Amino acid sequence: MTGLDHVAILVADLDAAIRLYRDVYGLTLSEVEEVPSEQVRVAIFGHGAGRIELVSPTGPSSPMAKAIEKRGEGLHHVCLEVPDLAKAMAALKAGGAPLLDEVPRPGAGGAQVAFVHPKGSRGVLVELRQGPQKA
Amino acid sequence: MTGLDHVAILVADLDAAIRLYRDVYGLTLSEVEEVPSEQVRVAIFGHGAGRIELVSPTGPSSPMAKAIEKRGEGLHHVCLEVPDLAKAMAALKAGGAPLLDEVPRPGAGGAQVAFVHPKGSRGVLVELRQGPQKA
Repeated sequence: MTGLDHVAILVADLDAAIRLYRDVYGLTLSEVEEVPSEQVRVAIFGHGAGRIELVSPTGPSSPMAKAIEKRGEGLHHVCLEVPDLAKAMAALKAGGAPLLDEVPRPGAGGAQVAFVHPKGSRGVLVELRQGPQKA
Repeated sequence: MTGLDHVAILVADLDAAIRLYRDVYGLTLSEVEEVPSEQVRVAIFGHGAGRIELVSPTGPSSPMAKAIEKRGEGLHHVCLEVPDLAKAMAALKAGGAPLLDEVPRPGAGGAQVAFVHPKGSRGVLVELRQGPQKA
C-alpha cells in the first residue's frame, strides 16, 4: 500500500496534547513511547496507514525543542509510503531537490526512510518510506 | 472508524505538485476536482481514511491564495473523523478554544464538519468531521 503512512505533529506538552486528541476529539490512543536517541516522546493514534503521531521533546537540547522555539507547535511532517524509494530519491536529486538524507537509512519495522527538505517538496517536510518487501 | 480522514497541503501550482506526488513519489492519484465555491482545485491521493489532498487556489481572490501569500505553500490542516462532533465542540467551547465554526456545517458525503482555530488546537488547524450514521 502506498500513500500516507503518518502525519507528525509537534507539541510542547505531550500529556496536554494527548488529553486534547483522546479526551476532547475522542480518538483512540494506540501507544506512547520514548525515543531516547532523538530525545522525544511520541503518542500514536490509530494503527497502520494514516496514523497521527504527536511528537514532544524530552529536553531542551532535543532538535524538536529547537523546532518549537523557531516555529511553534504544529504540523511537522508527513511520511509517505512510496513504491520505490531509490527511484524517488534519484528523481529528486536529478531535479536538484535538497535531501536531508543522501542515502536511505533504516526506519521502524524494517523500512528504509529518507527525508526531503521542504524546499525540495513544495513547502512540506516529507519522510519517504519504503517498507520491507512482502514475501 | 475514527482517526485521520485526510491531510490537506496547500500548493501554488497544482499540476507541478501532482507531478511531484504522482511521478516522483509514485503515489496514486484518485481524483482532481474544482470547487468553484471555494475557488480551489483539489487533487486527491488515496481513498478512504488517510487521503492526501493537494489544494490550490484558482484565482487571486481565493482565500487559499491569501494563505499562500502569508505563509507560503505547505501543510494546511488535518481532518479528523471523530466519534461525537457535538461533544467535541462543547468540550472545546468549555475550554475556551476558538472555533471557526460555531455550529457544525455540511461537509462532503453527508458529513457534518467544523474547523478549530490553531490557537484552540495546539498550533494545528483542525477540521473535525462526523460522517453520517451507518444504518
